[in-house]
Amino acid sequence: MADIIPFKDWQKFDIRVGKILKVEDHPDADKLYVLEVDIGTEKRKLVAGLKQHYDKKKLKGKTCLVFTNIEPAKIRGVESNGMVLAAVNSDRSKVFLIAPEDDLELGSKVQ
Amino acid sequence: MADIIPFKDWQKFDIRVGKILKVEDHPDADKLYVLEVDIGTEKRKLVAGLKQHYDKKKLKGKTCLVFTNIEPAKIRGVESNGMVLAAVNSDRSKVFLIAPEDDLELGSKVQ
Repeated sequence: MADIIPFKDWQKFDIRVGKILKVEDHPDADKLYVLEVDIGTEKRKLVAGLKQHYDKKKLKGKTCLVFTNIEPAKIRGVESNGMVLAAVNSDRSKVFLIAPEDDLELGSKVQ
Repeated sequence: MADIIPFKDWQKFDIRVGKILKVEDHPDADKLYVLEVDIGTEKRKLVAGLKQHYDKKKLKGKTCLVFTNIEPAKIRGVESNGMVLAAVNSDRSKVFLIAPEDDLELGSKVQ
């Protein structure tokens, strides 16, 4: 059972609508891409474990949600500044990006 | 500037794919609905500020994302057990539900 979380903790999370501009193979990891994502106010470079689930071409141009104020991390040697959110079913056979159901300005916030 | 949040704090959040089963007017608030949402393992009743943005009929049956382990709250006298996530643009003129880009089992988790 997951711990209960107060609303004020949720409010600390900055999750924004973004668009994937570039998709490159991670130089040192089979399952990872290095993405460039436009989050409205800036572009971010981040590492995402989407390679087994999305072709490069399919991913490019897609709208996504980015958790922008996650602690930056070096993932297999590549600096990652943000996390693209995805929904995953219980046996992990399906992984899909999540996005607003209609077009919204980049940088719009999830609340 | 939003505070930086470690990945382990993100992992405490339980956000799941749900489906809106019922939409009713909140008995005591003009902008709120009372929703019944199926999150796979159970049904939840929760209050959502979507009335200015979605017609009842449009909302019913929709896939959504539910932050399931938010602290339960009484909102204008109605118990709310969960929060439906939405993306909102900067002038708050547009509010859209967020969902996976393709069909996924109810209860699938956002990661």
